[in-house]
Amino acid sequence: MGCEIHEECGVFGIFSNVETSVAVDAYYALYALQHRGQESCGIATAGKSGFRSRCRKGLVSDTFDAEKLRALGAGNCAIGHVLYGALAPEDEGNIQPLIIDHSRGMLSICNNGALSNSATLREELESNGVILHTRSDAELIAALIIREKLRTNSLITAVSETMRRLEGAYTLLIMTADRLIGVRGMQGIRPLCIGKTEQGYCLSSESCALDSIGAEFVRDVAPGEIIIIDEKGMRSVTDNCGKKPSALCIFEYVYFSRPDSSVDGVSVHESRKRAGRFLAYDCPCEADVVIGVPDSGLDAAIGYSEGSGIPYEIGFIKNKYIGRTFIQPTQADREDKVRIKLNPIVEVIKGKRVVLVDDSIVRGTTCARIVKQLRKAGATEVHMRASCPPFLHPCYFGTDVGSEKILIAHDHTLEEMRKIIGVDSLGFQRIERCDEIAAGCPLGLCKGCFTGVYPCAIPKK
Amino acid sequence: MGCEIHEECGVFGIFSNVETSVAVDAYYALYALQHRGQESCGIATAGKSGFRSRCRKGLVSDTFDAEKLRALGAGNCAIGHVLYGALAPEDEGNIQPLIIDHSRGMLSICNNGALSNSATLREELESNGVILHTRSDAELIAALIIREKLRTNSLITAVSETMRRLEGAYTLLIMTADRLIGVRGMQGIRPLCIGKTEQGYCLSSESCALDSIGAEFVRDVAPGEIIIIDEKGMRSVTDNCGKKPSALCIFEYVYFSRPDSSVDGVSVHESRKRAGRFLAYDCPCEADVVIGVPDSGLDAAIGYSEGSGIPYEIGFIKNKYIGRTFIQPTQADREDKVRIKLNPIVEVIKGKRVVLVDDSIVRGTTCARIVKQLRKAGATEVHMRASCPPFLHPCYFGTDVGSEKILIAHDHTLEEMRKIIGVDSLGFQRIERCDEIAAGCPLGLCKGCFTGVYPCAIPKK
Amino acid sequence: MGCEIHEECGVFGIFSNVETSVAVDAYYALYALQHRGQESCGIATAGKSGFRSRCRKGLVSDTFDAEKLRALGAGNCAIGHVLYGALAPEDEGNIQPLIIDHSRGMLSICNNGALSNSATLREELESNGVILHTRSDAELIAALIIREKLRTNSLITAVSETMRRLEGAYTLLIMTADRLIGVRGMQGIRPLCIGKTEQGYCLSSESCALDSIGAEFVRDVAPGEIIIIDEKGMRSVTDNCGKKPSALCIFEYVYFSRPDSSVDGVSVHESRKRAGRFLAYDCPCEADVVIGVPDSGLDAAIGYSEGSGIPYEIGFIKNKYIGRTFIQPTQADREDKVRIKLNPIVEVIKGKRVVLVDDSIVRGTTCARIVKQLRKAGATEVHMRASCPPFLHPCYFGTDVGSEKILIAHDHTLEEMRKIIGVDSLGFQRIERCDEIAAGCPLGLCKGCFTGVYPCAIPKK
Amino acid sequence: MGCEIHEECGVFGIFSNVETSVAVDAYYALYALQHRGQESCGIATAGKSGFRSRCRKGLVSDTFDAEKLRALGAGNCAIGHVLYGALAPEDEGNIQPLIIDHSRGMLSICNNGALSNSATLREELESNGVILHTRSDAELIAALIIREKLRTNSLITAVSETMRRLEGAYTLLIMTADRLIGVRGMQGIRPLCIGKTEQGYCLSSESCALDSIGAEFVRDVAPGEIIIIDEKGMRSVTDNCGKKPSALCIFEYVYFSRPDSSVDGVSVHESRKRAGRFLAYDCPCEADVVIGVPDSGLDAAIGYSEGSGIPYEIGFIKNKYIGRTFIQPTQADREDKVRIKLNPIVEVIKGKRVVLVDDSIVRGTTCARIVKQLRKAGATEVHMRASCPPFLHPCYFGTDVGSEKILIAHDHTLEEMRKIIGVDSLGFQRIERCDEIAAGCPLGLCKGCFTGVYPCAIPKK
Repeated sequence: MGCEIHEECGVFGIFSNVETSVAVDAYYALYALQHRGQESCGIATAGKSGFRSRCRKGLVSDTFDAEKLRALGAGNCAIGHVLYGALAPEDEGNIQPLIIDHSRGMLSICNNGALSNSATLREELESNGVILHTRSDAELIAALIIREKLRTNSLITAVSETMRRLEGAYTLLIMTADRLIGVRGMQGIRPLCIGKTEQGYCLSSESCALDSIGAEFVRDVAPGEIIIIDEKGMRSVTDNCGKKPSALCIFEYVYFSRPDSSVDGVSVHESRKRAGRFLAYDCPCEADVVIGVPDSGLDAAIGYSEGSGIPYEIGFIKNKYIGRTFIQPTQADREDKVRIKLNPIVEVIKGKRVVLVDDSIVRGTTCARIVKQLRKAGATEVHMRASCPPFLHPCYFGTDVGSEKILIAHDHTLEEMRKIIGVDSLGFQRIERCDEIAAGCPLGLCKGCFTGVYPCAIPKK
Repeated sequence: MGCEIHEECGVFGIFSNVETSVAVDAYYALYALQHRGQESCGIATAGKSGFRSRCRKGLVSDTFDAEKLRALGAGNCAIGHVLYGALAPEDEGNIQPLIIDHSRGMLSICNNGALSNSATLREELESNGVILHTRSDAELIAALIIREKLRTNSLITAVSETMRRLEGAYTLLIMTADRLIGVRGMQGIRPLCIGKTEQGYCLSSESCALDSIGAEFVRDVAPGEIIIIDEKGMRSVTDNCGKKPSALCIFEYVYFSRPDSSVDGVSVHESRKRAGRFLAYDCPCEADVVIGVPDSGLDAAIGYSEGSGIPYEIGFIKNKYIGRTFIQPTQADREDKVRIKLNPIVEVIKGKRVVLVDDSIVRGTTCARIVKQLRKAGATEVHMRASCPPFLHPCYFGTDVGSEKILIAHDHTLEEMRKIIGVDSLGFQRIERCDEIAAGCPLGLCKGCFTGVYPCAIPKK
Repeated sequence: MGCEIHEECGVFGIFSNVETSVAVDAYYALYALQHRGQESCGIATAGKSGFRSRCRKGLVSDTFDAEKLRALGAGNCAIGHVLYGALAPEDEGNIQPLIIDHSRGMLSICNNGALSNSATLREELESNGVILHTRSDAELIAALIIREKLRTNSLITAVSETMRRLEGAYTLLIMTADRLIGVRGMQGIRPLCIGKTEQGYCLSSESCALDSIGAEFVRDVAPGEIIIIDEKGMRSVTDNCGKKPSALCIFEYVYFSRPDSSVDGVSVHESRKRAGRFLAYDCPCEADVVIGVPDSGLDAAIGYSEGSGIPYEIGFIKNKYIGRTFIQPTQADREDKVRIKLNPIVEVIKGKRVVLVDDSIVRGTTCARIVKQLRKAGATEVHMRASCPPFLHPCYFGTDVGSEKILIAHDHTLEEMRKIIGVDSLGFQRIERCDEIAAGCPLGLCKGCFTGVYPCAIPKK
Repeated sequence: MGCEIHEECGVFGIFSNVETSVAVDAYYALYALQHRGQESCGIATAGKSGFRSRCRKGLVSDTFDAEKLRALGAGNCAIGHVLYGALAPEDEGNIQPLIIDHSRGMLSICNNGALSNSATLREELESNGVILHTRSDAELIAALIIREKLRTNSLITAVSETMRRLEGAYTLLIMTADRLIGVRGMQGIRPLCIGKTEQGYCLSSESCALDSIGAEFVRDVAPGEIIIIDEKGMRSVTDNCGKKPSALCIFEYVYFSRPDSSVDGVSVHESRKRAGRFLAYDCPCEADVVIGVPDSGLDAAIGYSEGSGIPYEIGFIKNKYIGRTFIQPTQADREDKVRIKLNPIVEVIKGKRVVLVDDSIVRGTTCARIVKQLRKAGATEVHMRASCPPFLHPCYFGTDVGSEKILIAHDHTLEEMRKIIGVDSLGFQRIERCDEIAAGCPLGLCKGCFTGVYPCAIPKK
């Protein structure tokens, strides 16, 4: 609601020593990861009866039902994917996991992230006669791995060699007939963690998906690490670890991940509460009540309440039935008056000085609309607090912060922003607080969208 | 989540002095009322081009899109309905609004409630040669109105006369070619309120639907009152008012209505917070944190926190993508382990004494499962508090509390229930607090499901 | 293709002494009757588990699949209906069979035909407080039967009494929990025949549906006859027989019925071949080849060939994949050039004098287009022959010949028509031949659309 | 109906000098070619706004509507494809036309046929690091062309070089941003012809598709010929012509093509009538009536009637509504009794000696069932005649004659077959007649399925 930035993807994989309903586990796990990508989803399974998959536009709930899951068969292994998708809607071929049917061995692959050197790699492959059917990095990476494998005859070596050629963000799951392989990009920009099930292991973008299937959290995968899961258990290849500086995307804490997940050892809910507390210290104000923009601002609002001593309240009811097919009101002026998605609880707001906490401010238009509604509901003052610093630069690693032109902070001073949004005071998180928000995380952070300093080379315009 | 009781219906109607997109307003309003009925929905419009309607099984989002709304045409008047539906799934003819095409004038009708003398009325009509096509009270009432109108030649007189024959809960919207009529049952068991739009008026089960279309709240409709809206404005017929004792369903506050609605002058959110505070006074305990079961227990949890001084926290993340097509885990034991719909935030729970607040306890099975998860997440103590008294009797007025057999409180002592649910202490709201929860409401209350004392005759078994 | 007139309906009913898959039989039978109505279809079943039905817009193939048929359950009795439908597309309530759920006994009903006194009957019912939900004669008749039954306490008496009040065309199937009742209208305008199955009997608009389920043809139902089928077998009530002059619609032979059906003792294929032979005698010409417009003109073309000695050939290939969703070419001029639905076989036509036989000519526009294509394919002469007389008057008994304005024969001489259609000679069947076409049929014929003389009173404009 | 062999594909392409609704032309053309493949279909367009496509399982009528065609945009060029599909149903990636997005130029491709050296070519490509996403020859050929083009820098040269590597049946359409290229395989096993439109040219598997869009037939494409159509008009590259012996599939005349098409200069209808006449000469019998199995046996039945002097009649009515979703009767014995798909016209059959003509006999089971129905309808004798010789060998060039095991003629003598089918006499076309059936066709014929002698190397088992 608050944040207008979308994460590109989530991945989940599971390996079981006995053939079982791995597709059902993937289904529940993707439900838990749905917030990371709502454009399309897919599950591929491997078992005695070969590879099967179902990949479609739409939510997990639209794509799978009991019969569709049954059609994926029992198997030893499944990988699943949810995609946000900056891709054209008709381009359904991009939906993952991809299945690569090659005479030297079948494999299925899916990816979370965005390479920053994909154009170079694509050109190289095409000039060697390779035809790429999609614009996805997943297919590009698969083609590189296949070529390396023809040379080296070992899939793991091929994966390891291929990693050295990739720049930017990627978290891969690769499934063969008898193995599940997880790869976290050499800089660890996107997360990946390991869970233990009764009969094997699983890998997930976030730990909340482990909870959803009753798996136990084992540990996070290290940047550059390759995890191999098969009948013999789990092993790790660390040849590529530590070769490049780590740079976990700070937004995994601030917005992308679910509050009940733990990312690289840090509780997301706790990190957001800390962010709220820091805001209370750094941008204090006198007020009667603290409210959060549902759902992404709620954790930080509780933190602000704790830090400031101002009582926390439920300020808005969010309509939980509004989905993808909702028809937007067409006139902009009308949009200001109606309260379909969010409706303030008048009795909480009326006559009060309100602190309004959200995770971030991108364009500022949604904020301005929410603030108008608070004023209409009788708020005497509105103090807006954003739990991350202002966006000043684009992201090249799989989120759609978009061009600098749309970022309100890029062309406006704090005071100008305050006026546009229509609040009595406006406060952003200080850039220095980022490391404290992620306190306990052993990795470096990517804060490129705030600072313009990126952990690796970025594509030329 | 918490409560397993379902409200049967919600209604919305709008009249505009100029032909406009009344169907679009009804669409947004039904979105706001969707929590009152998720089985089916419908919108009927009346305008120069006659009556049109679209009624289907499924959510508002599944039933309508831009094209379908356009097909409903511009009009002066629209009525809409959401239904929970104890009816058989194939019985789509029951979906409302109904359109009655009779030589003495076309009308459309929809209803929220349940009559307690419908069997008698049905028998009388059928023995006079009337064929009823549905099992709905709406059609029954329409047939009675039509017969009265043949006799009296006035629709309003016919409505008024018909009301005197109806026992139980009903809130009717009736639309003719040039009028919108709203009727609140003589005992006011179900709510109805009036809103003012730019070019006319609207009527709604709850005020949150007025907010969703930018209408201003005017007032609640009185029990027994008939509201007539046409080109000349709004007028009221009060002949039936005060003839029977009023009895607003207490569950409109405790569970059915949205927290941002105001019902008969009382904020639902505030009433729930009061319920939480009363619980803190009446059933105190020593604990470290108060959490609510999302979404229905959150308001009362904040009230409990305020009343007790124990800090409020977000204890669970609810998966917001789980809809009607979600496939339930099949094994009961498995269900205890997986955390798909609700996942506790471990860091909030671990090592803490937790107060868990929900609106009510019906069977107790869901509660027991949630409590297990809290224990698994490391809660040292769990103290359960229900913001309404124990259910002991069935409801005959349009909610599906169901037979006494399934009610945990009917056959168990408090201590037995405590053990079944698996908590360290268990507290229910005291029956005496009901009136205080509804403080400010000028109507009497129906508390039949707690007391077995009903405001009118109930059907014989 | 040729004829632009549509039959309104077909009906089928089956009673089995043991519960069996009667819905599946109805499904196959409706497939065989699909040509009688392609707008909507429905099947209702009755058995130990009560009444069930599925009625939808669309073809039988779109409406039912194995699962849907299973959902209709095993039963003793099923009735089914296909509808052409002059009704508005949104009016899905009109789709039959209707199920009437009344305290004095449940029944299901469907009808083939059109009453000519429905307005009078409707007014009478409505002024007695009856609400009719559809515009169908079936519901009207059901309401009359229910009222009679309340008075007489016998369903058969009620049906018999009701028949005396109905004017025009109707063939009813009525199903109760333990009986199947078939009624042929008192003038027998629409057909109905009886079949014997292994475990009971069936009733059908046409005998081809009996073949489709392996039933044996027993006999045609007489005008005014009521057939009652139950556990005890089949019996007949003939009280109403012979009270009015019979008048079978001549178009059942000329166009509506399938060539492999036998209607009132006469083979439809043979009657059409006779019609072709009469044309050869009455409207001879010198030509090289006789071709028919597929599919409705083929039988008569073979008759013309036999009567004239001119060889029969396949002149056109009809595209068998063109269904309801086919997108028509939009420009009229283009339509003349393209040959999507019908394509002449050039080698058959080129350099030949062609006799083109169709069943009838309504507007003449389709004929003109087909003739143009024959000329383009190289026909040196085209002689058009229609196997029925010119349409001069509307039909009031369930076919959509439509207003006189659209009938080419109404405002044009034979020579004018010849020029409009663009043929070298044009010949229609002589009105005197009608009785000979139906030779062997014991009933009188309705030729109202040719003569303007109708077998009963027609509605006033 | 009669023949149980399925053609694999049909192709159509159109180039227009001005951007126009080429997708609509392709739509009508695919309707005309639908009989060549009913499993899936697709249209790709190229124009100023780039390439677009829609490819789906299902018939043309299911896949496209007005909106979907609009979404394909106006363009200069379109290619379309219908597929029978021996491919697994889930393998929707195989549906053509494929779009190849390569840095050296985008192209779209579709194919009719089957290569006999695809395994060798696939192995070669994969060992060079190419990933193939489908099992289709179309993608294989595209990959070969792309590799050749990287080497030669000319698309036409690349196509020409690639052709030399391909063995078996193929007819390709290739579309680039500004050209339409048609390729007929070097042996011409599958047909291709050229049409002239008002603003350009088109290419089609069969001439009936030219008629469907009002295009004029220009000529057939020669085996090995490459046709290039662009703004400058049409030109031909004949470098590969005549390098291998031509071998048109005889079944294009006997069964696959539509009777109103002309293939390699020969009218399909006339060729089938000739086949019928030859049967009358070679396998005469005494009988009263000749009937054909609809639709594939009708033309030959007329030929048999002409050759023998025995009158032709319509023997069966085929239910034209039975489509892909029809539910088959489940019990084999029941199947013999019901007459759902085909119903004999009793009056034509009863007491007659019948000659029954069909195009071919594969398993014989369908024939046997039809013969039983004729006997039941009263035929005193049934004489079966097949207008092609007995199938003895599999087809490797894109039809699914299937393994020898299912072919009735493979393991049975003529007399055995006669008994199995249950006829009084049985006659097949003599193999010597094949060339006469195709009289006028300048190409050699492939009769491999009758003789086991194939025009090129076949795959090893």
